[in-house]
Amino acid sequence: MSEERSRDRIQSIERAVQVLRAFNRREGPLSVAEISARVGLARPVVRRILLTFAHLGYTESTNGSWSLTPRILELGSGYFTASSLPEISYTYMTEVVERTGETCSIGVLDGLEVIHVARVEDRRPLPDSVRVGNRLPAHATAIGKVLLAQLTEPELTVLLASTALETYTPRTVADPDRLRERLELVRERGFDVSLEELNPGQVAVAVPILAGGQAIGAIAASSTTVRETEQSLTETVMPVLRTAADEIARAYRNANPQVFRADR
Amino acid sequence: MSEERSRDRIQSIERAVQVLRAFNRREGPLSVAEISARVGLARPVVRRILLTFAHLGYTESTNGSWSLTPRILELGSGYFTASSLPEISYTYMTEVVERTGETCSIGVLDGLEVIHVARVEDRRPLPDSVRVGNRLPAHATAIGKVLLAQLTEPELTVLLASTALETYTPRTVADPDRLRERLELVRERGFDVSLEELNPGQVAVAVPILAGGQAIGAIAASSTTVRETEQSLTETVMPVLRTAADEIARAYRNANPQVFRADR
Repeated sequence: MSEERSRDRIQSIERAVQVLRAFNRREGPLSVAEISARVGLARPVVRRILLTFAHLGYTESTNGSWSLTPRILELGSGYFTASSLPEISYTYMTEVVERTGETCSIGVLDGLEVIHVARVEDRRPLPDSVRVGNRLPAHATAIGKVLLAQLTEPELTVLLASTALETYTPRTVADPDRLRERLELVRERGFDVSLEELNPGQVAVAVPILAGGQAIGAIAASSTTVRETEQSLTETVMPVLRTAADEIARAYRNANPQVFRADR
Repeated sequence: MSEERSRDRIQSIERAVQVLRAFNRREGPLSVAEISARVGLARPVVRRILLTFAHLGYTESTNGSWSLTPRILELGSGYFTASSLPEISYTYMTEVVERTGETCSIGVLDGLEVIHVARVEDRRPLPDSVRVGNRLPAHATAIGKVLLAQLTEPELTVLLASTALETYTPRTVADPDRLRERLELVRERGFDVSLEELNPGQVAVAVPILAGGQAIGAIAASSTTVRETEQSLTETVMPVLRTAADEIARAYRNANPQVFRADR
């Protein structure tokens, strides 16, 4: 197989991924022209990719509008192995919900975004409709700041140089220098409390899940300004999260001995 | 672009999907040789696909063992649009959990399997660890039988001719003729109660979500033999599900007017 064929193959997979990602803004069906404009690929290329995915049962079209089918969910489900962070965490997250009455989430860092990998809702669900697989801006969430605080100074510098931080509410910490100060505070205290920094009325507290000296993720309890204050999040909810984080870290190390043996 | 290049492109996407699906058995990291054996592709092809996905941040390797990263979850998240069945259903599912104290799931049919598209757990989670995106055999689950009962006779005949049905417990209905009788009962009653047909100790009741004369999915409450009986599932839990199914169907029609206008 020639080098050129090899490059072709790689490119077509990358383009296929671009087309799937075009659907990630939660608005509903898209035309070939809309996807083409969104990802910068020619319409015939987009159409061919959509038809390939349709043949696999992952996309479908109604009156020229394309959408993803539920079968697409299987592409990600291989991440949820028995030893993966979400599977190990569910029992402990349920305990957090039971003890605090708030929604519990676990996220990992991906660049300047947090990917939510597990979520257990309280019976009073939040209006934010965050689901597993969703991304949120790291600088505007408690989980994100806890994870940014674990980066080295050079890692943080590279990240912050890559994009301007968006402001979502008057309380969003979008200035890089102020964000660095905040991350210093997070490192000192070992947790972050976010008060209406992403959405008005929403608050959260998060702590890192530290295994083998590194953050494998962060766990948060999310609520509203009606139910929680900075004080109640800090004094009542945070200690419950810290216990859960320790238990999850221990269970994760036990389930992934090869990872932690290789590291040290 | 020649027809041959076009076929190449399609094939590489299909192969990439095969490689991702090789991770769907929840066991953990896989070597190139294991994936190659599992999907029937040559090792260099598998390796090139894994490296492409690694470049995109979707796969990673430790000591020659490959696994999926949490970023892979974004490939499926485009399915969760505001007008999708899971997003519309969460409020009603939370009500079901509150009123019954049991775990509530919604699934859709994909061949002879059910894909779970939404799940709200009770505070006493079930030991089955079913997650969104997971598949279960339709003939051994309440959601599955409710959806199979909605198929036409020719559709059912084609499906049942395609594979032998597996037996999971002494109560699994794996014989095609007995399954047809059971589906007839489901059509008469409008619901299915499954008692330990997939896992010992686990029970569930499901009803179809009917919009515009067709089943857009089915909603179930799952529990254990310790908490529920056939009678309690039928008399207490089922009516709650039926109310939720009606409300979800109405909300779904309102959110997707173009689909239902096109149909009739």
